[in-house]
Amino acid sequence: MNNDSSSRIVWALKQWISQAAPGARLPSTRSLVAEYQASPVTVQKALQVLTGQDLIESRPGVGTFVRAVRAVRPADYGWQTAALGSPQTVLPPSSGTMRNVPNDAITFHSGYPDRELLPERLVRTALTRAARGDAALFRPPAAGLPELQTWFAHELGSAAPAGITAPMPSDVIVLPGSQSGLSSIFRALVGAGQPLLIESPSYWGAILAAAQTGVRLVPVRSGPDGPDPVELDRAFTESGARVFYAQPNYSNPSGAQWAPGHGEEILAVVRRHGAFMVEDDWAHDFGITSQAVPVAARDDAGHVVYLRSLTKSVSTAIRIAAVVARGPARERILAHRAAESMYVSGLLQAAALDVVTQPGWQSHLRSLRQQLQSRRDLLVTSMREHAPGAHLELLPKGGLNLWFRLPDGTDLGRLARDCEDAGVFIAAGTEWFPAEPAGPFIRLNYAGPNPGAYPAGARVIGEALARNGR
Amino acid sequence: MNNDSSSRIVWALKQWISQAAPGARLPSTRSLVAEYQASPVTVQKALQVLTGQDLIESRPGVGTFVRAVRAVRPADYGWQTAALGSPQTVLPPSSGTMRNVPNDAITFHSGYPDRELLPERLVRTALTRAARGDAALFRPPAAGLPELQTWFAHELGSAAPAGITAPMPSDVIVLPGSQSGLSSIFRALVGAGQPLLIESPSYWGAILAAAQTGVRLVPVRSGPDGPDPVELDRAFTESGARVFYAQPNYSNPSGAQWAPGHGEEILAVVRRHGAFMVEDDWAHDFGITSQAVPVAARDDAGHVVYLRSLTKSVSTAIRIAAVVARGPARERILAHRAAESMYVSGLLQAAALDVVTQPGWQSHLRSLRQQLQSRRDLLVTSMREHAPGAHLELLPKGGLNLWFRLPDGTDLGRLARDCEDAGVFIAAGTEWFPAEPAGPFIRLNYAGPNPGAYPAGARVIGEALARNGR
Repeated sequence: MNNDSSSRIVWALKQWISQAAPGARLPSTRSLVAEYQASPVTVQKALQVLTGQDLIESRPGVGTFVRAVRAVRPADYGWQTAALGSPQTVLPPSSGTMRNVPNDAITFHSGYPDRELLPERLVRTALTRAARGDAALFRPPAAGLPELQTWFAHELGSAAPAGITAPMPSDVIVLPGSQSGLSSIFRALVGAGQPLLIESPSYWGAILAAAQTGVRLVPVRSGPDGPDPVELDRAFTESGARVFYAQPNYSNPSGAQWAPGHGEEILAVVRRHGAFMVEDDWAHDFGITSQAVPVAARDDAGHVVYLRSLTKSVSTAIRIAAVVARGPARERILAHRAAESMYVSGLLQAAALDVVTQPGWQSHLRSLRQQLQSRRDLLVTSMREHAPGAHLELLPKGGLNLWFRLPDGTDLGRLARDCEDAGVFIAAGTEWFPAEPAGPFIRLNYAGPNPGAYPAGARVIGEALARNGR
Repeated sequence: MNNDSSSRIVWALKQWISQAAPGARLPSTRSLVAEYQASPVTVQKALQVLTGQDLIESRPGVGTFVRAVRAVRPADYGWQTAALGSPQTVLPPSSGTMRNVPNDAITFHSGYPDRELLPERLVRTALTRAARGDAALFRPPAAGLPELQTWFAHELGSAAPAGITAPMPSDVIVLPGSQSGLSSIFRALVGAGQPLLIESPSYWGAILAAAQTGVRLVPVRSGPDGPDPVELDRAFTESGARVFYAQPNYSNPSGAQWAPGHGEEILAVVRRHGAFMVEDDWAHDFGITSQAVPVAARDDAGHVVYLRSLTKSVSTAIRIAAVVARGPARERILAHRAAESMYVSGLLQAAALDVVTQPGWQSHLRSLRQQLQSRRDLLVTSMREHAPGAHLELLPKGGLNLWFRLPDGTDLGRLARDCEDAGVFIAAGTEWFPAEPAGPFIRLNYAGPNPGAYPAGARVIGEALARNGR
C-alpha cells in the first residue's frame, strides 16, 4: 500500500533520473513542492526513498544529486527471440480502420459512427442510473443479465414468420462486444486448422478473428445480391466446411443486402450440408431505405448462429453484443465464453438494456435513419462529381459505408498516402479480402464527423486518383 | 425498426401460443391491455400481426383463438452432433466457485469479496462522473487509456529497487479483466500443444485458460514458501518449457507468499532458462499482515509478464486489469488482445482510474486490511473449534482464502453435498490442481457475506467431516 503522493513523486523522479547525467543536480525541494503540488514533508519522503535506493545523494547545504555510479544498461530483450519462437498464427498488423488521426482530418476510414449519431442523452442517463443500482456492484450470470437475454431474444423473435419457433432468452449469450464473440464462435464451431467459408469481400474483423483462432478461410465470392447458392454449395462440398460466416444485411464493406428469397435459398444450402451459418447482423440498427430482417429469424433448427451488436449504435463505451444459438452449439460457445472472460460487466449490460428500452431509442433510430440517408446521399453525390473514376458498385440500403471499385492498376498505397497528405483518411479495400483482392477498392464511411467536409474530401480523392492514373 | 410495445406483446403471445392447445381462447383484449400496460390500439396491432402469421384466428363476437392447424415440431438439434464433432479442447464444466446460491446460504465457496468490502461510494461516484465525461462516447486506443497505463506502470514501478528501470506506461496493456489476459498471454507466449509450467495447486481460472488455449500444463509442486527452485529448474529442463505461471503473493488457493529472497532465486532460474514468468498479482490489494511486493518489480529485462487486476478490489462491474510486459512479448500479447476484443470500454477504464486515484482509495485499503484480518481470524478460530479435523496448512498473510487439508480418504463430493444440505457452500480443492489432487483439500473464502455466520458454518463443516469419516 503506497502513500500515493510521495510514491507518485518517486516514480516521476525515477523517470527524470534515468534521463539525467550522473552527478546532475535535482531541482530544489521548493520547486519540487511547486511542481508536484505536494507538501515539503511528502517531497522529503520521496527523496529519502530515492536516497535509500542509492539513486541520489544529498550534500547538506549544497543540494541533491544524481549518484555518479549507476548501472546504465540499455534495454535488451534479445533473449526473447528464442523464447517466443515464430508465432503459431501470424496476426496482421492492426487495422487501418482503427487508427486515431488528427482532429481536423476528414475521416472516411473509420468503422464507427460519429458521436453526433449516438443517442448521447440516453447513454449518459442510462449509465448514471446504472451507477446507482445493483449492477454497479454485483456479478451477473455467465450468459448475461436475464432481462437483457430476454430483450435480445425478443428482438430476433419478433421477426420470426408464422410457424417458426422464436428463440428463448436462454438461447442468448451476452458478449463484451461482437469481436470476442467471433473468436469464441470460430473456436467453438470450427476449430484450429478446420475450414470456414466466408464471403469475399467480408468484414476485416472476422478475417482477423479467423487468423487468431487458426481457422482456415475458404472465400466464397459475394456480390451486390449476396453469394451465389450454387457456388456456396460447391464450396461446402469441396472444402468439407461445416460453417459459413456471412453478413446478409448491409454487408461490410459492400453494403449488399440479401433479398428474403435469397436468404431462404442460402439457408437451404446450409441445411443440406448439415452446417451452421454465422449471421453477423452488425448493422441491424442502420437501415436506411430498408430494414435488416435477420435470416436467423427463419431458422428454428439451430442452423443459424446469430450475432447482434449494440456497440456501434449505442456507444463504444457500452460494449455489449449477443449471440443467439440453439442446441449443443450454444453450450459449446458458452463454455468458450466462460473460459475466456467468465462474465460481462453487469453495469454495461444494465446500461445497454436501459438505452434500448427507452421510448427515446425508437425515435433516435428514426432520426438516425434520416441522418444516415442524407450523409450517404451527400457522399455519393460528392464522389460522382469530384471522383468520377471511382465506381460505386451498389447504393447501399443501410449500413455505414460506400464501397468503390477504382480503375485497374490503381496503386492503393500511393492513393491512401496522397489523400492523407491532404488530410483525408480512406480505407484501402485490401483488408476486406480473405485472400488476394478482386481488384482495387476503397471503403468510405459516410457516418464520420462533419459531413460538410464531404465534397472537399471527395475532391481530394478525385485529384489523388487522377494523379494515380498518370 | 419495431414498434416496441406491440412487438413485445407479439413476442409474449407467441410464447403463450407455443404452450397452448390448438383452439385455445386468448385472453380478452381488455385483459391484454391490463396485462401488458398497453393501449387497446397497440394490443389490436399485435393481434393483427399474429393473425397475419396464421397463428391465431378471430371469430367476431366470440373471441380470438389459437389456430387449430399448426406445425408442432419439437426442437431437434441432433444434426449438430456431426457438424460439431468432438471438441479440439474439452473444457471443464464451469467452476463451482462461480455458482449463484440462495441468499440465506453461508457462502465459503465464492472467489469474490462481499459487497460490503467494496469501495461502494467511490465506485458509484466514479461511474457517475465517467457517465458525464468523454469516456461515455469515445473509443480508447487498443492498449488502453494513457492515464490508466501510467497508473499501472507507476504502481509496479514504485516497488522497483535501486538500479532497476521502472516500466514505462507504454509497457502496459489494459484488459477487460484478468481472465481474458491469461488466455491472450498463454496464446501469445506458449501456444497450443506447447508446455506451460504451473504451480500445483494453482488458480483454477489459469488452469481453465490453459485448457481453452490448448497449452500443455506441467505442474510444479508449490508449498507454503512457494516452489522449490531446484524442482523448477528440473521442470524447465525436462519439459523444454519457456513460460512459468505463478502467484508469488497470497497464492490462490493456499495463500502462500514467497519471501523476497525466494523471488530472486526463482527469477534466477527463469533467467537461466531464457524463459518468462507470468506473475499473476491477483491479490495485490488484499495484504493483511504483509504487503504484496511484485517479483516483476525486480526485473527490467522482460522476463516477468505481470498481471494485475482491479476487478475484485474495485467492483466486478468495473472489470479492469492490466498486463505489464516488455519487448517483443508485449507486442505479441497486444496483437492477440486486439484480435480478441480490439479495445476496452473507455467508461470502465475512466471509472477504474477515478476510483484508485481518489484519496478515499487509500483509506479504503487500510480499512479493508483490518476487515480481512478480523474475518480471517474469526474463520480460523471457528474452524479450529468446530472442525478440528481440517488442518490449516498456512495462516495466510493476505488474500481472501483459507486452504485446509482434510483427513486422507475424505469423500469431497459427499462432504460438499452434506454441507450444502445444511446451507453451507464450500469449494472442493480438486479444481485447483492441474493434475491429480495431492490430497483432499477444501478452500474457504473468508471475505463472503455475514461473518457472524462463520462459527455456525464451521460447525456444519465439522459435523459433515465427522460423518464423512465414519
